[in-house]
Amino acid sequence: MTSSGALLTDLYELTMMQAYLEQGMLGTAVFEFFVRKLPAERSFLVAAGLEQVIEYLEAVRFTDEERAYLAGIGRFTPAFIEALRDFRFTGDVDAMPEGTVFFPDEPILRIVAPMPEAQLVESRVMNLLHYQSMVASKAARCVITAPGRTLVDFGFRRAHGAEAGVLSARASWLAGFTGTATAEAGRLFGMPVYGTMAHSYVQAHDDEARAFECFARSQPHHALLLIDTYDTVRAAHRVVDLARRLAPEGIHISGVRLDSGDLGDLARQVRAIFDTAGFPGITIFASGNIDEFKLRDLVSQGAPIDGYGVGTRMNTSADWPYLDCAYKLQEYDGQPRRKRSPEKATWPGRKQVWRRLGVDGRFAGDTLGLVTEHAKGEPLLVPVMRDGRRLGPPEPLAQGRERARTQLDGLPAVLRGLDEQPDYDVAVTAGVRELAAAVDRAT
Amino acid sequence: MTSSGALLTDLYELTMMQAYLEQGMLGTAVFEFFVRKLPAERSFLVAAGLEQVIEYLEAVRFTDEERAYLAGIGRFTPAFIEALRDFRFTGDVDAMPEGTVFFPDEPILRIVAPMPEAQLVESRVMNLLHYQSMVASKAARCVITAPGRTLVDFGFRRAHGAEAGVLSARASWLAGFTGTATAEAGRLFGMPVYGTMAHSYVQAHDDEARAFECFARSQPHHALLLIDTYDTVRAAHRVVDLARRLAPEGIHISGVRLDSGDLGDLARQVRAIFDTAGFPGITIFASGNIDEFKLRDLVSQGAPIDGYGVGTRMNTSADWPYLDCAYKLQEYDGQPRRKRSPEKATWPGRKQVWRRLGVDGRFAGDTLGLVTEHAKGEPLLVPVMRDGRRLGPPEPLAQGRERARTQLDGLPAVLRGLDEQPDYDVAVTAGVRELAAAVDRAT
Repeated sequence: MTSSGALLTDLYELTMMQAYLEQGMLGTAVFEFFVRKLPAERSFLVAAGLEQVIEYLEAVRFTDEERAYLAGIGRFTPAFIEALRDFRFTGDVDAMPEGTVFFPDEPILRIVAPMPEAQLVESRVMNLLHYQSMVASKAARCVITAPGRTLVDFGFRRAHGAEAGVLSARASWLAGFTGTATAEAGRLFGMPVYGTMAHSYVQAHDDEARAFECFARSQPHHALLLIDTYDTVRAAHRVVDLARRLAPEGIHISGVRLDSGDLGDLARQVRAIFDTAGFPGITIFASGNIDEFKLRDLVSQGAPIDGYGVGTRMNTSADWPYLDCAYKLQEYDGQPRRKRSPEKATWPGRKQVWRRLGVDGRFAGDTLGLVTEHAKGEPLLVPVMRDGRRLGPPEPLAQGRERARTQLDGLPAVLRGLDEQPDYDVAVTAGVRELAAAVDRAT
Repeated sequence: MTSSGALLTDLYELTMMQAYLEQGMLGTAVFEFFVRKLPAERSFLVAAGLEQVIEYLEAVRFTDEERAYLAGIGRFTPAFIEALRDFRFTGDVDAMPEGTVFFPDEPILRIVAPMPEAQLVESRVMNLLHYQSMVASKAARCVITAPGRTLVDFGFRRAHGAEAGVLSARASWLAGFTGTATAEAGRLFGMPVYGTMAHSYVQAHDDEARAFECFARSQPHHALLLIDTYDTVRAAHRVVDLARRLAPEGIHISGVRLDSGDLGDLARQVRAIFDTAGFPGITIFASGNIDEFKLRDLVSQGAPIDGYGVGTRMNTSADWPYLDCAYKLQEYDGQPRRKRSPEKATWPGRKQVWRRLGVDGRFAGDTLGLVTEHAKGEPLLVPVMRDGRRLGPPEPLAQGRERARTQLDGLPAVLRGLDEQPDYDVAVTAGVRELAAAVDRAT
């Protein structure tokens, strides 16, 4: 079954779309995507996923098979099914470029399009921005906590499906990770791929030393040997013996991986064994339930670990596996709109975010205002699509990665810690407040 | 870029595969997938994802483009890249059918295949079984907690990517959910789809009553109106007025949805309004941060809510967004194997799980033994693939759903609660223990 992606949406988007078409409600709708509230242990977020949103919006079409499926549900009229044949996204998109740091209530994407189009794309746009921004934000915490260390995404196997696997590789690299273990992510995004060896490889051999030697001969410049299958310290001595024996052949052991036990303590023992034996160049890599908290612990105790495989806890964002995000109608047919449900009230109108920098070059405060207003600082949302087409070629992922690096450098020191932090200052303009009050009076 | 799925794997699977081929290690490997440990708030798990594993194993091939990508990495020999051209999975698979309840250390899938094949598929097999089993297990808790209620998967937008969105719809339906809001899941899996309306629809209209009427006319038999955009109680009265006015035209209001506020209290008020007005048939549907704990709360207070939209917290398994699962080598070339890393030791050999039922028809205990042993009860792993081909047509999802229903009915009462429970009895045979000891002596 081929999928165009058009049905990656909630059924209600389609029933509402039919109702809009029947009522002739084709006026311009303005929707913005934002996060309502930070998880308790986050002090900032990193925007990611825009490129996949643009690709989706440019490509979304209904195939004959998809229309036939919808026709069979019993909810749609023949006229609606026919109208879907010509469906295209023809709207405008403004957004924060990928890698931009953002805060609650700040829109990171605005869609301005005929109502039925803007409604249909809600589910998938959210699905794409939510996941990658969540992962990039989690990964950024790792990057800040372990400066200078190699950080590799190891999480494909427990990511929530294949797309989560490859997109978490992408989002973590954007946020500053060194690379991924997922081959498909390397192919799709041109990002660096890394690999070590598994316990099964060691176990398949009758003895560990033999497993190490075979692998080193097969990967003469890249062998990273897993040394915790039986006894880590004994295995480290075997690595030394092997490194001595293979050096004359031009085969070098690149490093070892620890995957269980007290990582800091074992790393110190193993480092001493290698250094004493004259192999200071053999690196130590660690994995196993690594997240930013474990990294803080190991880095602060000075564990001689050069790199980390960061898996499940990063790409499921294990402590907060979702963000309280929304894609909300801000304006329809020229009239501002606002949701007033308890605890879910939103700011109406088309908005922009301006960011001021302090004399130290760090973020000194943001202003959330209407696009028609002007505030001090740099406007963060920029035009990315007009009339359903992207305005320029896709941004190289490396460029987003460089932006993320600069942005993370710009974070106020107080926001760089892992625990709960004071809120960053986001001022809401009088223009936005007055508009909200006007909308409330009108409804 | 077309993807065959072959690169949905960790790079190390490929480097190990190259080493195996170079060494002529083509012997038969036996790997089993199991969960090491239950999350604190789970007392059982539900197997799911087998059908996607079979589809993957039957289809996995390397395209020319994928081989060209690997050739460019600098880790692989031309001979290996050439060998990938003919790659096929030719192994055998035994597994617990989808919907089977299982416990820690019990394999739910065994792969017996030439070592390079069994190694390559590790990452994707885990990725598929882990996610769906995790979601089915979470969804089953909701089903047990809210018997007789309509439960609909609402979570696509915050699922971790598109595949997680559609597979969580599938896994939750398998576990007993009524359906999903995700259109693509309906198309792919033939499962029921449901939809209501969004706040944006109400807000796009100048007044709420007009929005309700237009939607009801567009969905004359299915209109489920969202009534919390402004004032829930006032909106409920509007629904009554509308229902009265449209009844003569044969248009019926199917129900209403509450999405914020005190759901139990609002449901009681709204129910009273409908009943007093002579509309006992208008159903009440609730959504917003629903999970099994919220369901327990609402059901136990007798809230008159007929159905629930269960989203983010179910399909991200928010309290435990991953399982401690593994795909471990149990035997290579006729020799049993075992991992002995601290806290990660595994039982060696090809294993089977037998389940005994008590006189009440409920599970009375499992036995984990070697396939060569015999124990009381029903063996849970059955043959599903031989020589790389499935043994029968795909099982209809409805059949797995029926199995899950029977299995959940068979759970001992003590395991049906939501909080931490005593461990279910899984006995390990003397045969397994002796084999483990023999492996330990040999290495």
